[in-house]
Amino acid sequence: MSFTLGGDTLVRRTVHPSGVRILTESMPGARSATLGYWVTVGSRDEQPTETGAAGSLGSTHFLEHLLFKGTSQRNALEIAQSFDAVGGEHNAMTAKEFTCYYAKVRDTDLSMASSVIADMVTGSLIDPHEFDTEREVILEELAMAEDDPGDVASERLFSAVLGDHPLGRPIGGDRETIAGATREGVWQHYRERYSPSTLVISAAGAVNHDALVAEVTSSLDAAASDWSNWSMDAVAAPTPRRSVPPASVQRAEAIAEIERPGAQINLMLGVNGLVAGDDRRFAMNILNIVLGGGMSSRLFQEIREKRGLAYSTYSFSSAYSDAGLFGLYAGCAPDKAGQVTGLLRDEFSRLANDGITDDELRRALGQLAGSSALALEDSDTRMSRLARSEMGLGVFYDLDESLRRLAEVTVDDVQSLAQDLASREFSAVVVGDLSESKAGLSIRSALEVSR
Amino acid sequence: MSFTLGGDTLVRRTVHPSGVRILTESMPGARSATLGYWVTVGSRDEQPTETGAAGSLGSTHFLEHLLFKGTSQRNALEIAQSFDAVGGEHNAMTAKEFTCYYAKVRDTDLSMASSVIADMVTGSLIDPHEFDTEREVILEELAMAEDDPGDVASERLFSAVLGDHPLGRPIGGDRETIAGATREGVWQHYRERYSPSTLVISAAGAVNHDALVAEVTSSLDAAASDWSNWSMDAVAAPTPRRSVPPASVQRAEAIAEIERPGAQINLMLGVNGLVAGDDRRFAMNILNIVLGGGMSSRLFQEIREKRGLAYSTYSFSSAYSDAGLFGLYAGCAPDKAGQVTGLLRDEFSRLANDGITDDELRRALGQLAGSSALALEDSDTRMSRLARSEMGLGVFYDLDESLRRLAEVTVDDVQSLAQDLASREFSAVVVGDLSESKAGLSIRSALEVSR
Repeated sequence: MSFTLGGDTLVRRTVHPSGVRILTESMPGARSATLGYWVTVGSRDEQPTETGAAGSLGSTHFLEHLLFKGTSQRNALEIAQSFDAVGGEHNAMTAKEFTCYYAKVRDTDLSMASSVIADMVTGSLIDPHEFDTEREVILEELAMAEDDPGDVASERLFSAVLGDHPLGRPIGGDRETIAGATREGVWQHYRERYSPSTLVISAAGAVNHDALVAEVTSSLDAAASDWSNWSMDAVAAPTPRRSVPPASVQRAEAIAEIERPGAQINLMLGVNGLVAGDDRRFAMNILNIVLGGGMSSRLFQEIREKRGLAYSTYSFSSAYSDAGLFGLYAGCAPDKAGQVTGLLRDEFSRLANDGITDDELRRALGQLAGSSALALEDSDTRMSRLARSEMGLGVFYDLDESLRRLAEVTVDDVQSLAQDLASREFSAVVVGDLSESKAGLSIRSALEVSR
Repeated sequence: MSFTLGGDTLVRRTVHPSGVRILTESMPGARSATLGYWVTVGSRDEQPTETGAAGSLGSTHFLEHLLFKGTSQRNALEIAQSFDAVGGEHNAMTAKEFTCYYAKVRDTDLSMASSVIADMVTGSLIDPHEFDTEREVILEELAMAEDDPGDVASERLFSAVLGDHPLGRPIGGDRETIAGATREGVWQHYRERYSPSTLVISAAGAVNHDALVAEVTSSLDAAASDWSNWSMDAVAAPTPRRSVPPASVQRAEAIAEIERPGAQINLMLGVNGLVAGDDRRFAMNILNIVLGGGMSSRLFQEIREKRGLAYSTYSFSSAYSDAGLFGLYAGCAPDKAGQVTGLLRDEFSRLANDGITDDELRRALGQLAGSSALALEDSDTRMSRLARSEMGLGVFYDLDESLRRLAEVTVDDVQSLAQDLASREFSAVVVGDLSESKAGLSIRSALEVSR
């Protein structure tokens, strides 16, 4: 399985015969490191319930929580204490196409971090009592997200735009799937999905590649001894990348209205965006910055600075292996929701109709160059970039190479992309107090007029 | 005005004859820097409305917004473009005892950042039309916070615990004070409060002290030429530190119930805490970590790990010059709110009654040592630490010195502090769906039983 290194970097990559991949980026002078164990399974890999069979929706996130709850070597408290006692950051995230367990620690604690995470990933017990307790914690996590109108809008936008494509589902499942999840179902998900072939380990900062390879190999060996599919001696190939063609996506909803009390209306518009491997991703970076990527962006200037209609407004782009989402956001007063919806649509159309200026292109390049340089001072950004390159395109670009690609983008490239996106069926999601203010009516009318 | 440097650091401090203070910390090898212009005025310095006179509540935060809206040299778009074009982070924050305008940029952009912020701080026009537009933006910012139950609980806890002390007021004012604010009132606040004597400039990272001093002096001179109270030629002393004795604080509410729909109840308990200069602040750091400062903390273990009652639970400590707040938080299901309230109270009491163990003390020290070392890798943390030392105690401790002080804390110190805090009148704030679930009743009953 090939992996291309672009540019002159301190990146190294080793594929262990078991299928485990290990990537490191040494940062000269660093006194700390960030380490991630990434598993190539995300919420999109779950199965909905079918007649006669339990589904696995929500299992990936449920499992992520359970991996903190104890192994044969360490109970939950001991896992927490390992990292707290050295002041490390330690957490995990479940996404649509991967799950990641990570820690940021001082250089002297990297070996500890590596063994503890190895133990969690390979040797979790999934104790039935802990399972039931953790179910309640996850239900509270879902309840917290339900109380956040921005989270509610964002989840719904994915399902509205991507319809019944697996990427359209919420990452954490919902109350019903979590309430119905069984210990056996999650255990099976764990045993089937977690194996040396699906594991990518990345580290950046004060890290020595050869030492880390030896360290994780021995940690995984020790931790995994009683797990047949975790034999580090068996020879296996890494799980192939998700190199799927763009999916045919069917929009589920043109307008989704979620009525709830609140001082603001949360508005989102979105279309099916670019897939991760699309050559136009560099043009997308520019487009996103010009339209809604900072205080000088068009959305911020038109909606907030000139008209005072919103405190927060921006655009965003999420790309996955076979689908994506490009969206616009604003939070505003209910009686301004129609006007703001119209402005979001108009700015998007104006970009497609009139393109961007040379000045905007130049500033966007400067913004990406500067913000990337600042972001790459943190080992966590570099750690994450390594694993995403490995699991995604199989191509690693360093900063210079990325900037070279960005510099090739023309104003015409950006306008063509905007025209393509603007021609796609869009969805609008509206969360807030719709009835009292007639916001729903004015939004629907703004959407009609803009079309 | 004295300032004590503890430990062997790369910190330097210059007091300009005008009263402007400039502090820098050079970080060898850094390629970027964070720069902050701090003004020693916060929401506590505002005046409530009195009969016959307009108050200034909310003016500090309103002013902070307006400083982004243009000077005689740059309009709002040009200010935004200055930072966006180089990918810098650029923002501001208004707090109870200060206001800060800051930027994180690559080393080559530090001079630009310094001039633009100098221009904003000294030469803003406060255009009447921009004033009216920005009022709408701030009302949306307040509306957004209103829709966040955690923000609502936190604001209310301050007023419940600190009563009519100026620190008990919300930082941003409220809808009424913002709706009633006048351009002349905010202009007056600006002219009276912003002067060389109240300005502290701090920078960390790739920064040369002498060069920065020359740079900001010339920026301030150039930017401030038409402002009589910004003469950099006049000689003035820095504004004295707020070295006030602890205030006598009168709790306003024992229980504040804020009824609103929601999947969770947001619970907060709080007492008047330590003032910033209290010698027991090092013991407070330990206490806060042991009780609610991480995944291995008592609150996290008891409420989340053992019982699955909450996703998020923690303790926190905020210290100001003459009052403070120590608080406990949990978000939980309405039908568990009584039980969780009891657990928060019980864990607090148990700490006061039984103290902490040697093991807990040792781990807390390790946690503080590690997390501080990681935090100090960022120039923004160092920049902020410098200015806070200057405006606060007038004593700068580097990491080694801080850790030496922490290492002197004993388990008895922590228990004595816990006993003191537990003996203070506490306030409970409850935000959520209280009526339907009888959560209010069960919380009130839990508070009675625990007392």
